[in-house]
Amino acid sequence: MNIAILGTGSVGQALAKKLLEKGHNLYIGTRDVENTMKQTESDAFGNSPISFWIKENPAVELLRFKEAVEKGEDLIVFSMNGQYALSCLASVGTDLLHDKILMDISNPLDFSNGFPPSLFINNTDSLGEQIQKAYPNLKVVKTLNTMSNPIMVNPKALKGDHTVFMSGNDDEAKVKVASVLQSFGWEAHNIFDLGDISTARGTEMMLPIWLRLFGKLETPFYNFHVNTLQA
Amino acid sequence: MNIAILGTGSVGQALAKKLLEKGHNLYIGTRDVENTMKQTESDAFGNSPISFWIKENPAVELLRFKEAVEKGEDLIVFSMNGQYALSCLASVGTDLLHDKILMDISNPLDFSNGFPPSLFINNTDSLGEQIQKAYPNLKVVKTLNTMSNPIMVNPKALKGDHTVFMSGNDDEAKVKVASVLQSFGWEAHNIFDLGDISTARGTEMMLPIWLRLFGKLETPFYNFHVNTLQA
Repeated sequence: MNIAILGTGSVGQALAKKLLEKGHNLYIGTRDVENTMKQTESDAFGNSPISFWIKENPAVELLRFKEAVEKGEDLIVFSMNGQYALSCLASVGTDLLHDKILMDISNPLDFSNGFPPSLFINNTDSLGEQIQKAYPNLKVVKTLNTMSNPIMVNPKALKGDHTVFMSGNDDEAKVKVASVLQSFGWEAHNIFDLGDISTARGTEMMLPIWLRLFGKLETPFYNFHVNTLQA
Repeated sequence: MNIAILGTGSVGQALAKKLLEKGHNLYIGTRDVENTMKQTESDAFGNSPISFWIKENPAVELLRFKEAVEKGEDLIVFSMNGQYALSCLASVGTDLLHDKILMDISNPLDFSNGFPPSLFINNTDSLGEQIQKAYPNLKVVKTLNTMSNPIMVNPKALKGDHTVFMSGNDDEAKVKVASVLQSFGWEAHNIFDLGDISTARGTEMMLPIWLRLFGKLETPFYNFHVNTLQA
């Protein structure tokens, strides 16, 4: 597939590396290509800048958001901080987003009061729903937003079953996203289709417990499993 | 132990039956004893009224909230809808709550716009914290609020591991609550102490995903497990 990845942070990089390994053509979107390629410093969490990886992988194109979506026509992966979702998509424009599938991995995290962050949308709305409402012809599938990026792209890093959720209004889009998840190693019985995009409220609101667990476990290697096995 | 259970609905009844089976003396608190004993109709979910069970178990005393706490001095179980938490505790009074342990199973569910309910407190606050703030000398331990009542009192109803969380400021109170959980069948390694009472934000905010799962699974027999097993 020709895939656009919007976001060059640790989540975007983890997804890019896995999707490249799976043989896809990648068009990575950023706000300012020159500026992104100039960055040589790791981020606050020790993640190296994407410029290094792009230089090592010349087949991968780093482009402005709009151009990335123009070329990555089969799937858009949104992997930025949720606060940039609507401005990023606005710079792509309604016409280009028409009928496309957006795999939305973002969360509405508000770091303005430090760590752990709160949510800037929640309870009676979600970021997934706001994106869907802003672009009614975009097929938004919220997924992977309830775990760390090493688990997203390598579910077998944990022994036993654990769950990835999907929320979205379009069943065909969810089938396509599920096939991408399966290519990462997710077993079909661990991919849980919660229903329409309003169910993204549920998964986005898992971030507070995820963050508290991170504080206690001090490792990103954990995930939630919905245990349904009756004794 | 002498245990006060505040709340006569399905959660209170499930806890009462299990705690009676374990040999505790139970003092069940309600707003209006006469009115509660007069009820003979099942609730909207088909749960029978507590009056039947009280008549069958004359050793269990049904009392007003304050009297129940006076007699159930070793542990208070709060099992009402969260919207009644502060008014119920106000009727008990600060003096009686001094130094007591409150096992808080409630959630801040707002059913005013139908099903699924939203939360009337969340994100930067929690019901657990509001109770703790209102009664600084009460030892609030939020637990069991992320699952259905059949699972709370019978974790072995599910095969394999699944998690019960605890949030609270007082370590001794958490040890006591953990021992009650263990008496229900919870294995120590599945009891997850998240930390202080502010971590109740995390567990209360799991209700939206719990409710969506309930809509999909159509059974109360499931629970979350934090899978930490690295491959």
